[in-house]
Amino acid sequence: MNVTVNGRTRHYRTVSFNARHNRVVLIEQRLLPHRFKLVESPDFRATARAIRDMIVRGAGAIGATAAYGLAQGARAFKGRGVAAFEKHLDRVVETLKRARPTAVDPVNAMRQMRAQMGRGATVEERQQLALDAAEAFAREDIEQCSEIGRHGAPLIRNGMKVLTHCNAGWLAFVDIGSATAPMYAAQAQGKRFHVFCDETRPRCQGGTLTAWELGQQRIAHDVIADNAAGHLMQRGEIEIVIVGSDRTLGRTGEVANKIGTYTKAVLAHRHGIPFYVAIPLSTIDWNLKSGADIPIEERDESEVLGAWGVDERGTRRWVRVGSPGSHARNPGFDVTPAELITGIITPAGIFKPHELWDNRHCLGFSGK
Amino acid sequence: MNVTVNGRTRHYRTVSFNARHNRVVLIEQRLLPHRFKLVESPDFRATARAIRDMIVRGAGAIGATAAYGLAQGARAFKGRGVAAFEKHLDRVVETLKRARPTAVDPVNAMRQMRAQMGRGATVEERQQLALDAAEAFAREDIEQCSEIGRHGAPLIRNGMKVLTHCNAGWLAFVDIGSATAPMYAAQAQGKRFHVFCDETRPRCQGGTLTAWELGQQRIAHDVIADNAAGHLMQRGEIEIVIVGSDRTLGRTGEVANKIGTYTKAVLAHRHGIPFYVAIPLSTIDWNLKSGADIPIEERDESEVLGAWGVDERGTRRWVRVGSPGSHARNPGFDVTPAELITGIITPAGIFKPHELWDNRHCLGFSGK
Repeated sequence: MNVTVNGRTRHYRTVSFNARHNRVVLIEQRLLPHRFKLVESPDFRATARAIRDMIVRGAGAIGATAAYGLAQGARAFKGRGVAAFEKHLDRVVETLKRARPTAVDPVNAMRQMRAQMGRGATVEERQQLALDAAEAFAREDIEQCSEIGRHGAPLIRNGMKVLTHCNAGWLAFVDIGSATAPMYAAQAQGKRFHVFCDETRPRCQGGTLTAWELGQQRIAHDVIADNAAGHLMQRGEIEIVIVGSDRTLGRTGEVANKIGTYTKAVLAHRHGIPFYVAIPLSTIDWNLKSGADIPIEERDESEVLGAWGVDERGTRRWVRVGSPGSHARNPGFDVTPAELITGIITPAGIFKPHELWDNRHCLGFSGK
Repeated sequence: MNVTVNGRTRHYRTVSFNARHNRVVLIEQRLLPHRFKLVESPDFRATARAIRDMIVRGAGAIGATAAYGLAQGARAFKGRGVAAFEKHLDRVVETLKRARPTAVDPVNAMRQMRAQMGRGATVEERQQLALDAAEAFAREDIEQCSEIGRHGAPLIRNGMKVLTHCNAGWLAFVDIGSATAPMYAAQAQGKRFHVFCDETRPRCQGGTLTAWELGQQRIAHDVIADNAAGHLMQRGEIEIVIVGSDRTLGRTGEVANKIGTYTKAVLAHRHGIPFYVAIPLSTIDWNLKSGADIPIEERDESEVLGAWGVDERGTRRWVRVGSPGSHARNPGFDVTPAELITGIITPAGIFKPHELWDNRHCLGFSGK
């Protein structure tokens, strides 16, 4: 999407590839929203470090980064023979996988790629197929987000007030984003609307990343404390909620997403405000039978006991906010039951949560 | 309540008076939770500044501070004659009132005091009555909180998990607090329980002041992001919610309190978790006929766009968290409807919200 640097507006992707120099190009997200900077990773090990160190985050974005990292590693192979090449690839895959051990997107992306690369007879052919497959993976990510936007845009009427939680924007994907896709598509249709961004404590991805995205894209928005959405709903100031999802259960329609999503769904339900979840197909889990089985990661308490920001000199700092000696609980995600969800916006259309299973064959289900 | 400084535990009040040196003694709350310090205000002007500059905050606490400030001003009078004395008092009252123009407690406290002082014939008698009245005002604040504790303590069972929001603790009163009163009383009865403190963005009074209070009092607690309570309720980890109130409507039972209170009430209601509001009588508004008429203060956006804390050297700092160029909405309060409130814990007992009006004559109603 658009980024304006020094008065010049250009289009960027979160992740891209410089084939000539064999480099993965990433937005250095740890500096956002206070500074915009691209980094080029010179080899697959640096790409793995970029994933590990959170230069890039978001399921779609790290999937594409791993895909490009694998292509990068494949193309850097200087040895001889397919056997040695495949052994080298094993190391590349292992390195990229270990960068974020709990994430499934890198694993899926690389598995898919290697299946395609197997069609090449020589090292050179497989290297070319690796690059093609990585580009195809990134393109697929963008296309799915674009389709989410196409299906979701009609939900946003001119003049509407929209609430979103956390960052399910283009920074979490290769481009466009999931929850933001209907907004960007509605904007492209000439609609004007106002977005409230939950700041999304403790990591504040809403107040930082989503607000930055919308600002760059010139969409009117306000950051609000997570506490404020209920009051704004009471006063009729929120008309639709659109969020993303880390994992959606295809069998039940339950949605795991950033902590606080459930709260917003409960509030929206009380006020009769439509609550939509926008997802690419890769986030649908067709196996789990109950949201209660989704493991909820307990993250470091320092996230709750403090905040990252920049001081008056623009230096990035963490300050301790919470009382010294006090501890914190920090569940990273919560699960929203299907009954609170108006619709799930997918690349294949909008479905009621309980309709996912019946439509599984057009939603990427590959089981029996 | 208890504070431990350098290994020594002592009992403190938020506000007290050093009659010998005619000084108001305050806990410097702006340094909390990172540093505990008492400040002595040498004259009524300094006391007014302490109110204005938020050295002391919380309805009960600033009411008592203004009361002591008025006594301090009265006792510093060096002129002659009751008429000159009263003129001097007008200036004192005006100065203290202007320190926090929207607060009602200082105004009520000082009006009450002057009525009592009028019973004195001489300047000296009125000076003595001023001190007596200020002490009586502070004592009354403590007694009401103590009664809230007595009535509320049975709600907290041994082993229970309690949620509270913001700071309605002893730091907001002269001592004991309102929402914390049942906890301190239950602790005194030997019960053990665990408190979750909503951090209460944007000003984080829960993660700072309430967590500090509970820590000093050795009550087990965890700070949580405001987003986390819904998830904890889903998992059965919260069994009761107790909050304070800035204004409770005696005619309807609606409760205005720190932003986010309404959200917690909605969540508690969904999960069948009892939701209690603890209030001293001074916060009951017998006039307003609807919560929709309560003006909701919109506070400075910098509160939402950043956070106060201490850096690694212990220096207090504000860091900007939110995206540069983005703005924020910052409603300071919200209104919780009576239907979501299980009970209102008052010094006169626990009432259902709709029972307040019927019991108005034992709840301090002085109208017709």
